[in-house]
Amino acid sequence: MRIILDAMGGDYAPQVAVEGAVMAAREFGVEVILVGREEAIRAELSKHNTNGLSLPIVHASQVIEMQEHPAAAVKAKPDSSMVVGMKMLKRGEADAFVSAGNSGGVLAAAIFHLGRIKGIKRPALATPYPTTKGFCFLIDVGANTDCKPEYLLQFALMGHVYAERVMGIKNPRIGLLSNGEEETKGTIVVQEAHQLLKASGLNFIGNVEGKDIPAGMADVVVSDGFTGNVVVKLSEGLAMALMGIMKEEIKKRPLAILGGLLAKPAFQAVAKRLDYREYGGGPLLGVDGVVIVAHGRSDAIAIKNAIRAAKKAVEGGILKAIKEGLEEMRLASPSEEE
Amino acid sequence: MRIILDAMGGDYAPQVAVEGAVMAAREFGVEVILVGREEAIRAELSKHNTNGLSLPIVHASQVIEMQEHPAAAVKAKPDSSMVVGMKMLKRGEADAFVSAGNSGGVLAAAIFHLGRIKGIKRPALATPYPTTKGFCFLIDVGANTDCKPEYLLQFALMGHVYAERVMGIKNPRIGLLSNGEEETKGTIVVQEAHQLLKASGLNFIGNVEGKDIPAGMADVVVSDGFTGNVVVKLSEGLAMALMGIMKEEIKKRPLAILGGLLAKPAFQAVAKRLDYREYGGGPLLGVDGVVIVAHGRSDAIAIKNAIRAAKKAVEGGILKAIKEGLEEMRLASPSEEE
Repeated sequence: MRIILDAMGGDYAPQVAVEGAVMAAREFGVEVILVGREEAIRAELSKHNTNGLSLPIVHASQVIEMQEHPAAAVKAKPDSSMVVGMKMLKRGEADAFVSAGNSGGVLAAAIFHLGRIKGIKRPALATPYPTTKGFCFLIDVGANTDCKPEYLLQFALMGHVYAERVMGIKNPRIGLLSNGEEETKGTIVVQEAHQLLKASGLNFIGNVEGKDIPAGMADVVVSDGFTGNVVVKLSEGLAMALMGIMKEEIKKRPLAILGGLLAKPAFQAVAKRLDYREYGGGPLLGVDGVVIVAHGRSDAIAIKNAIRAAKKAVEGGILKAIKEGLEEMRLASPSEEE
Repeated sequence: MRIILDAMGGDYAPQVAVEGAVMAAREFGVEVILVGREEAIRAELSKHNTNGLSLPIVHASQVIEMQEHPAAAVKAKPDSSMVVGMKMLKRGEADAFVSAGNSGGVLAAAIFHLGRIKGIKRPALATPYPTTKGFCFLIDVGANTDCKPEYLLQFALMGHVYAERVMGIKNPRIGLLSNGEEETKGTIVVQEAHQLLKASGLNFIGNVEGKDIPAGMADVVVSDGFTGNVVVKLSEGLAMALMGIMKEEIKKRPLAILGGLLAKPAFQAVAKRLDYREYGGGPLLGVDGVVIVAHGRSDAIAIKNAIRAAKKAVEGGILKAIKEGLEEMRLASPSEEE
């Protein structure tokens, strides 16, 4: 299997990108194609033992920075690692594309250069989300702020496929994020989506509320990208705030400081369970290729695990499964452009 | 000052309602008018020393239950504690109304029987929200799922007034909840609201993201009621999940168990900082009367503090301040009904 890595993407690129690629190539036996500034990548590669590993470099002279306007940057920088890599995927020169760069840029590059799966109205960004019971899968987390009910239905289908084929959850329970359990709760769009989901043939368990997400009540949580983005960022912020408040209160009390030291391994275990690096990245679903978006702050372990997610998505045949699912749901609308 | 308490509202009513009323009457020197089933209230009152306190009872034979459809229940139960109390407030027989009952019911009863402040398009439910720096104020948290930009502008004004006059925050920083900092981020409604807020004369600091809420980046966080509701419930659920995961990991490790015991006072201090009982309840803003909605799970301390919030809101003259603010913003649209 060949996986393209945007070697220039992420806050610590190309250093951690290359390190993660080396780890992934060794651990998973995949070829990782490093796209970006050849000299910089070569310098990083020379720091590692790459004996017996397949880590070809494809030069791309430009870089899309984190702060750039996604669509404009993708157009203005045809020789960026993101665009060059995405075009390679389109030409079938690899099986998947992974980037920790500007996520809006990945979305724009994918839509321009890969295109959507026939019948999919809107691609969606999604992410595994840690719960008390393991992980659920949250879709959309930022690609689409204003959604129509049919988009949410398609997010549910794509979430179903990813949860089952990549996360290994059989017949995943699909929940629709709302402000109450009853089907009459939610925005007008959510209420209509509820009815579509009821009729979809998916394992729809109804609306879920904010508190139900970390409790693991659903395996797939369907949301518009606005609310989903707030959920993901709030969760990160709240976990950090809680840890901060806890440290503050422990530091005020000498005995608690000792207690904190003794409990440290437990705290570390908690942090590990919440660590985004464990799953590495979330997929961009609905485009016609396997694309994984890793966190901008990714370290080498996160990059390695994002490559693992890409590998699993390819092995799981998610593109084919989404296409078949669309057919089954009679939702394919071949020529429709919205 | 006279404050009406819905003695039948909340999961543990009338017991904790009456207990909270007794505490509030003693601590704050207010008259608390207990509305509900006289016999049940009298039985609870007899358990307390009410010497020198003013705790009159007004009989109401019906109760709106937590699970009832709000608007339907308010119409079907004219002699419910909620409706009787709200009508008393309307007639000027008290200064404020407090309930831990069905929050949709409080909203419906307030809109039917109090009416809106002239010029306010949509009343909003709001709540103090604990941050690493103290509290911010989140508005709306559930009254309005589908919002227009002007509603969000008015929420900001009402939040400004409440934060300043009740929470004591001078010239509060107003943030608009969105999925990115840039003014081009957000739903169409949020993007338009951003422009209205920029021109409002309020201390608008721009968009805030999910992670910025617990970090205390804004004093007032403006949101539609759908997203705001998800934020509040997710925060509760996530805090509980984190505590649960922490206990689980501590229990696996004998030394960590000892550590946890030593650090217990610090954990308790954290819990206290996050405890909704400390502020007791959130206001329903935009209706023509001071209405405080307490948490359904309220205990006596929460009820007492909800009564304190009502007292502060009356003392702060929030109704007059909202009316004046509307005038200043030239937003008053007297006869408009949407």
